[in-house]
Amino acid sequence: MSTTDFAHLSESGQARMVDVGEKTPTNRTARAEAYIDLGRQIAEQLRATGAIAKGNVVDTARIAGIMAAKQTSSLVPMCHPLLLDHISIDAEWEGDLLRIESCVRCTGTTGVEMEALTAVSVAALTVYDMCKSAGKGIEIRSVRLLEKTGGKSGSWQAESGRNN
Amino acid sequence: MSTTDFAHLSESGQARMVDVGEKTPTNRTARAEAYIDLGRQIAEQLRATGAIAKGNVVDTARIAGIMAAKQTSSLVPMCHPLLLDHISIDAEWEGDLLRIESCVRCTGTTGVEMEALTAVSVAALTVYDMCKSAGKGIEIRSVRLLEKTGGKSGSWQAESGRNN
Amino acid sequence: MSTTDFAHLSESGQARMVDVGEKTPTNRTARAEAYIDLGRQIAEQLRATGAIAKGNVVDTARIAGIMAAKQTSSLVPMCHPLLLDHISIDAEWEGDLLRIESCVRCTGTTGVEMEALTAVSVAALTVYDMCKSAGKGIEIRSVRLLEKTGGKSGSWQAESGRNN
Amino acid sequence: MSTTDFAHLSESGQARMVDVGEKTPTNRTARAEAYIDLGRQIAEQLRATGAIAKGNVVDTARIAGIMAAKQTSSLVPMCHPLLLDHISIDAEWEGDLLRIESCVRCTGTTGVEMEALTAVSVAALTVYDMCKSAGKGIEIRSVRLLEKTGGKSGSWQAESGRNN
Amino acid sequence: MSTTDFAHLSESGQARMVDVGEKTPTNRTARAEAYIDLGRQIAEQLRATGAIAKGNVVDTARIAGIMAAKQTSSLVPMCHPLLLDHISIDAEWEGDLLRIESCVRCTGTTGVEMEALTAVSVAALTVYDMCKSAGKGIEIRSVRLLEKTGGKSGSWQAESGRNN
Amino acid sequence: MSTTDFAHLSESGQARMVDVGEKTPTNRTARAEAYIDLGRQIAEQLRATGAIAKGNVVDTARIAGIMAAKQTSSLVPMCHPLLLDHISIDAEWEGDLLRIESCVRCTGTTGVEMEALTAVSVAALTVYDMCKSAGKGIEIRSVRLLEKTGGKSGSWQAESGRNN
Repeated sequence: MSTTDFAHLSESGQARMVDVGEKTPTNRTARAEAYIDLGRQIAEQLRATGAIAKGNVVDTARIAGIMAAKQTSSLVPMCHPLLLDHISIDAEWEGDLLRIESCVRCTGTTGVEMEALTAVSVAALTVYDMCKSAGKGIEIRSVRLLEKTGGKSGSWQAESGRNN
Repeated sequence: MSTTDFAHLSESGQARMVDVGEKTPTNRTARAEAYIDLGRQIAEQLRATGAIAKGNVVDTARIAGIMAAKQTSSLVPMCHPLLLDHISIDAEWEGDLLRIESCVRCTGTTGVEMEALTAVSVAALTVYDMCKSAGKGIEIRSVRLLEKTGGKSGSWQAESGRNN
Repeated sequence: MSTTDFAHLSESGQARMVDVGEKTPTNRTARAEAYIDLGRQIAEQLRATGAIAKGNVVDTARIAGIMAAKQTSSLVPMCHPLLLDHISIDAEWEGDLLRIESCVRCTGTTGVEMEALTAVSVAALTVYDMCKSAGKGIEIRSVRLLEKTGGKSGSWQAESGRNN
Repeated sequence: MSTTDFAHLSESGQARMVDVGEKTPTNRTARAEAYIDLGRQIAEQLRATGAIAKGNVVDTARIAGIMAAKQTSSLVPMCHPLLLDHISIDAEWEGDLLRIESCVRCTGTTGVEMEALTAVSVAALTVYDMCKSAGKGIEIRSVRLLEKTGGKSGSWQAESGRNN
Repeated sequence: MSTTDFAHLSESGQARMVDVGEKTPTNRTARAEAYIDLGRQIAEQLRATGAIAKGNVVDTARIAGIMAAKQTSSLVPMCHPLLLDHISIDAEWEGDLLRIESCVRCTGTTGVEMEALTAVSVAALTVYDMCKSAGKGIEIRSVRLLEKTGGKSGSWQAESGRNN
Repeated sequence: MSTTDFAHLSESGQARMVDVGEKTPTNRTARAEAYIDLGRQIAEQLRATGAIAKGNVVDTARIAGIMAAKQTSSLVPMCHPLLLDHISIDAEWEGDLLRIESCVRCTGTTGVEMEALTAVSVAALTVYDMCKSAGKGIEIRSVRLLEKTGGKSGSWQAESGRNN
């Protein structure tokens, strides 16, 4: 069997940054999500602090996620550097869960899936950091791609339900 | 109600890096884990490539995770810079799931939980990036702290089962 | 005449990072400020958007300043890396001026003046960036140290009035 | 009233990186300046050290400013990454003031004002750092844009006099 | 005599990032090599550890080199930021010497020679770091460009023999 | 045979950052050197430009090397972050060769050899970049450690001659 399904592996199985020089730049978008399960205790403490504290936890996470998306190719070894055209992050509470969703756009020769996933991952880590003094047992769950458009492989959408 | 449970928020709810100058340096450790659900299709393709490719996916992820742990305070806005004494990352396959576990140690005035969580998060993103050309629908699950020692709050261990 | 007044210059006038290895670690603090003159037009537009927009401009600047303080030794060539214990940034409106003040603390062998100044500089640049689409002619003014404590040279306070 | 004047704020006032994907790449330039008031005492000490020391202070600042311009999108949260075509920094003494001027060029979909302003800000911080052991009370003044060209909004020039 | 042969020096000899805005983007490639002389003792110890250890030293160096190539413009002050299309690193043993070779590709207005050289330099430093506990006297030798293609000056190849 | 001679490899041969938490902080120094062979043609062109250009090439390399030393743990995957107390870089011409020497000091639990080697490597790359428009065939040679002091293994000095 071969390694050809794994673009960042050479024929002999070594890691390399796959060549995208022959690809035509197209508009690319990706959306990703992450869930943070804060647990009942922390969620109630956060609600009790009122709008300002909740807002600042989310705003700090939003900015961290946007800044991290721009660092993706410094963090993930085989990612290509890209000139991102747009990054936004939304967050909404679902009971004791905080759902974070990112949207990333770029005109380039490779997709922005990893940028969208990095954005929600670091935003989720930031929520964790802002809340961890209030209690134990926070868990980041279901970091996944929701949708991508552009590129040779075209559009793709995740099935609607979370797997877990 | 107050914001005092949230160390990185001031009394008026603004984000700030909490003062750890009065704390005594102690030995700190943290272990964290992340699961990557590659799905049946990708897992089989990876197994079919043999030991070299599987090894290179995991080795690349291990190095990415170790390097990311050292960038934690650049990624997570309110994290303190720390001089990490040790970082290691292990990975093991559980069927179609890859489990990644990090261990981080430091002598300092604040814990290394975020470093251990950042290590597994970026290692998991790297596995995702190395495998995404082989199929859709990869999901990172259950990023969580397993154990911490050191500091005023002492030791803590997660309950054994994953929540999801 | 000699270069001995300039600690980062060698006797022959070459730049080098001055040796602080013999100095004893002490508690260090620094406070700095910067003024951003947004002009009447932008300030009124910002006031008209209400609390959320004003808050988000300031919150984004606060986080950018805190993160930049941690990057000081990567930006200013002869600055020593330091383990910062605390960083906070406050902002208040004085008519059409926004005043930003930083407070940085550390236990170390060299002071945190540059970290406090970098924090307010990057926070001010961020306010500029967030507001520049609304009008021209923004000016950052009077970036200066307000106070330092700790170290061999002891405490120092700026005279109260701004010079300009 | 609305947030539409503030491009980096969404309609609901949240920070996001505005989408520049639909804009056509054009040649962009920006020039910015900063003044550093070293005070009489330091300026005289620096003059007394002769050409080498003065040159090294300015050369170190020039390189720091050029390198910082390339980090703008890592420092200012909503700035887009850009491939800068050219960066230069000049410095001239006006009595006890050092005036720093940057020139930045790029072919892209968004302007380089923030890069030019970041360049002079970090160059000024570097002059501050190189001189601070010689005396207190240094002040960075009048960080502002001098000129921009390119892009939909076309050219703009600052009025000639400093405001302060 | 003039400074015109040195593109990163202005007419008055000051460092600046040369303007590449008028150049047409073309496909660029560069290959570079570095030799690491580990000495007899370390080479034998490494051989004695078997395939896994040797593989991990080289794999860690490969990933470090690929990641460093993407940081070239942050490390080398006058280098332009570039969107690299491809990076790969190979290594082969020649007795007690390890030869590292990089290949970098990009579509852009300036060449990728420095990226290829930075890749092998940091890969070589990483081999050094991974082996230095096993013995003294490691030496990195003959870091040089092997070949470049693209750009106004066209193709170039190094003469075949190492100079030393 | 075992991997115990290679501190950054685990018993099973996997890369990890060796644990230095049990080591006592001591004063550490390291000196390293690199030679850049510019070739006759470039060396003569550089001499013809006079003191300013030669000075600016070396000054830019010096600052690049100092800044790179502080990034060592971000570049070399298994290097520990360290608080460097001092960095200096000297350069001297030996005919058509430029010799660069770094000196790094730190109080810590691990040595600064890699920081000294990274400093001269990046300084040499910078000289290369500043001179490459003037001619082909530049070669970086003999990057090696000259001396180290401090730590359990004590002092060490290289033999005087270069090996190549």
